[in-house]
Amino acid sequence: MRRWNGWGDDGIDVALGVEAQDFLAERLGPGTAPQDASFDAACAALAPGRLPPHPLVDASAQTRLRHALGQSLPDWLRLRHGRVHAAPDGVGYPECSEQVRSLLAFAAVNGADVIPYGGGTSVAGHLGVMDAARPVLSIDMSRMRAMVSLDREAQLATFCAGVAGPDLEAQLRAHGYTLGHFPQSFEYSTLGGWVVTRSSGQQSLRYGRIEQLFAGGRVETPAGTLDIPTFPASSAGVDLREMVLGSEGRLGIVTHATVRISRLPQHESFHAVFFPDWERALNAVRELAQARLPLSMLRLSNAVETTTMLTLAGHAKLVRLLEGWLRLRGCGEGKCMLMIGVSGDRAQALPALHAALGLARRHRGVHVGRGLGERWRRNRFRNVYLRNAAWAHGYAIDTVETAVDWPRVTQAMEGIERAAANALHASGERVHAYTHLSHIYPQGASVYSTFVFRLSGDFEADMLRWRRLKDRVSEAIVAAGGTISHQHGVGVDHAPWLELEKGELGMKAMAALFRQFDPDGRMNPGKLLAP
Amino acid sequence: MRRWNGWGDDGIDVALGVEAQDFLAERLGPGTAPQDASFDAACAALAPGRLPPHPLVDASAQTRLRHALGQSLPDWLRLRHGRVHAAPDGVGYPECSEQVRSLLAFAAVNGADVIPYGGGTSVAGHLGVMDAARPVLSIDMSRMRAMVSLDREAQLATFCAGVAGPDLEAQLRAHGYTLGHFPQSFEYSTLGGWVVTRSSGQQSLRYGRIEQLFAGGRVETPAGTLDIPTFPASSAGVDLREMVLGSEGRLGIVTHATVRISRLPQHESFHAVFFPDWERALNAVRELAQARLPLSMLRLSNAVETTTMLTLAGHAKLVRLLEGWLRLRGCGEGKCMLMIGVSGDRAQALPALHAALGLARRHRGVHVGRGLGERWRRNRFRNVYLRNAAWAHGYAIDTVETAVDWPRVTQAMEGIERAAANALHASGERVHAYTHLSHIYPQGASVYSTFVFRLSGDFEADMLRWRRLKDRVSEAIVAAGGTISHQHGVGVDHAPWLELEKGELGMKAMAALFRQFDPDGRMNPGKLLAP
Repeated sequence: MRRWNGWGDDGIDVALGVEAQDFLAERLGPGTAPQDASFDAACAALAPGRLPPHPLVDASAQTRLRHALGQSLPDWLRLRHGRVHAAPDGVGYPECSEQVRSLLAFAAVNGADVIPYGGGTSVAGHLGVMDAARPVLSIDMSRMRAMVSLDREAQLATFCAGVAGPDLEAQLRAHGYTLGHFPQSFEYSTLGGWVVTRSSGQQSLRYGRIEQLFAGGRVETPAGTLDIPTFPASSAGVDLREMVLGSEGRLGIVTHATVRISRLPQHESFHAVFFPDWERALNAVRELAQARLPLSMLRLSNAVETTTMLTLAGHAKLVRLLEGWLRLRGCGEGKCMLMIGVSGDRAQALPALHAALGLARRHRGVHVGRGLGERWRRNRFRNVYLRNAAWAHGYAIDTVETAVDWPRVTQAMEGIERAAANALHASGERVHAYTHLSHIYPQGASVYSTFVFRLSGDFEADMLRWRRLKDRVSEAIVAAGGTISHQHGVGVDHAPWLELEKGELGMKAMAALFRQFDPDGRMNPGKLLAP
Repeated sequence: MRRWNGWGDDGIDVALGVEAQDFLAERLGPGTAPQDASFDAACAALAPGRLPPHPLVDASAQTRLRHALGQSLPDWLRLRHGRVHAAPDGVGYPECSEQVRSLLAFAAVNGADVIPYGGGTSVAGHLGVMDAARPVLSIDMSRMRAMVSLDREAQLATFCAGVAGPDLEAQLRAHGYTLGHFPQSFEYSTLGGWVVTRSSGQQSLRYGRIEQLFAGGRVETPAGTLDIPTFPASSAGVDLREMVLGSEGRLGIVTHATVRISRLPQHESFHAVFFPDWERALNAVRELAQARLPLSMLRLSNAVETTTMLTLAGHAKLVRLLEGWLRLRGCGEGKCMLMIGVSGDRAQALPALHAALGLARRHRGVHVGRGLGERWRRNRFRNVYLRNAAWAHGYAIDTVETAVDWPRVTQAMEGIERAAANALHASGERVHAYTHLSHIYPQGASVYSTFVFRLSGDFEADMLRWRRLKDRVSEAIVAAGGTISHQHGVGVDHAPWLELEKGELGMKAMAALFRQFDPDGRMNPGKLLAP
């Protein structure tokens, strides 16, 4: 069953090995396992729901609690400490567009706000109740998961938008196709959620971001139904898809999405290449991106992340062997690991891989074969379970991400890590920060930093630690000219920094757009645009 | 000097050969050269300008006439007959953003509408005065053409947005770069114009449409300045670039645009391949697109266009030799010509070309080498001059274009050609219609049809012919599920069909967006959204 106060399925545990525990203790001090509130106690603490009964709405405390928050660190703190200040008053489970409309009408009649709920995986605060004075209806899209149509000729598939990653891929795979959209939240996040948060998958280098994959669909809004037809391209005015992409539930609920699919790749493999230092590695990935080789992934870890990952993965003996071998080839202390993915027809993929490895070699990159790559592939959606294990040992793991043009990539990375490292000095705590470039473009890269720090076990103190850290690293992102989010969206957590990149006019334009579809302002209020 | 009532430079004439004249006479009847109004007479017919003097504004009749209209067929008819019902009251020539702001303020103070003017190449009616009751200021961006910055590391270049194609490419070429955006209007159309009409170049298969190339910039709007920063990608809410792309002057004037550039290709070549029939050719291009080979162009002419092009190109003897040779290889009457372009590093381009020719061969495609391809490249921006020559012989040439998903491509093409062929029955006239797929996507293709018909020489009668033709082919586009424009934009001519694809809600959303930037509704009123 899905964990109510942590990541993923409660049948899956990814342990933090002894070496990893030592590694963290050495850097941060020993952790103390915090005491979690029980599910029953958290349910009992909820105020009673205020919505009248509706045949599609579940108003039980259990269901309301499970829809109260997402996966951001402040969300976790609230759940772990049983401090859920407000939950939706009921959760609707529509099975079709008509039922979505009926639920929107039910909300309107009852003066309720609406929070669309996909996979509940937001790490930016998209799901919390903002204004407890008004009743809130959560609309859970999980029953809308069917593939509605498949057009092999146009390589288009239409899904009900509540479909989660594995279900979507399984339905396509049965016909020999893939969408190729693999965010780390893949196991739970949904097609509709990907669209409204402008999600990006690990293999976007080949398949594109969700912006490129979303070809059209249906959105139910308080002002009516918006149907967006599919065209290969169009110059007919403003693109309606782009009003929905990134709208974060503010204008309505995506009920159907047509996506651009690809044939399953003949070949897919992942390859680890180590570089002696950051500068060489960075030059190599920039050249790889600008050479426009048909690769499917480029993911570059900095030196600290490389060491951290190798340590956290366990297998100390194997890692020591690998490190010895690498040292002989010039990759010692500051070595950085690049993961290269190729997917597609053999005739294209293998020459591209060959060219990429050749280019890497010219920057003194050392290819260590497919073993590490295969391990990365197997664990690509399991690493996130380490958050649970670390928490149990008294450590919080949080991440931020941005994207910047190439001249500012290193500056952004260093600025973010420095800000994080110093953020908790006041409370005498250290922060272990490390970074990878998760998505590589000819123009620049996304910069994805992870922070580990100790939990005090006190709710207010730990919220304050998170707040300080979040503020400092967000300031560093802005200072480096980065966007406040490359792939997680804005939600509540990033909203204070949004105007710095959109400008006053841009913010007003977004607000005007949402108002048109949602004149009463009941759709996910307070998210994306501060109230 | 630029022709005031036709295409291009008046020093360039592309003749209509005797064979071509016979070809048209046989299909449409003999043409009669119409009598054009003189420039002086057309100037003299303009009502006096109503704006007070301004140091940046030229209010001479000559300049006002030259900014009154674009290159659509109704625009031509008005110019050729000296029936310019209204012209801007003055033309401002800003040299920087500040001067654009000052001109917008000047317009506001004088209650004037504003029509932004780029290269004047619109074929959809973006430039005409809609409401002659209010004064109108045209803002000509031609003095804003400098490259402001070049970032080699991020492969970004910032230009003043009035820069025209050749000037932009020359400034980049000096540094070893190209934008790679080559619409047929390339010689005159401007960067800003490309952005606001969502333009697509002939080699978009490699370089992308302007949507992919436009990374950020500055827009001066009545409500203030909108600065859009550059990021490689972002999930921070609605993408502001997408509010500007396709806005057709309705929210402001793009003064600066930062674009994603590429290194000049090591290798570039174009290759003609003939197929025995449409069906085989269509299957081949669909497979080529879906194989995602790194080609730069796929451009497929149907049988009538293939014959028409070979005839209009002259060189009858060579063509007969070629046709004989092709017939021996199975390409007779219904043969269709595909032009394949490759651009890039040799190591990528040549294998891609090889793979493409192999795939074509499996569909019985016959490669005739680079001669025809080279000829196509040389004439890529000259064919449009045939409009002038045909007019002089009494024939009008007009085009429409759309894009549809693969299952509807042939239906769209046949529907458009059938509608055109029958459109002028009432006046006893025939229409010679032919089509190519100008842009190929995994999802579908653009369908670009050309019509040739006789001019009566009477203004009202010829306007009526155009109106009938335009209405019938636009209905056929809509009936086939196509967008009303793939690359020309909406303007006035396509506005009546826009709501059929955007829906009432979509139309209102666009209007709300524009109103936010232009509360008084003075920016290019009546274009894109009907008043």
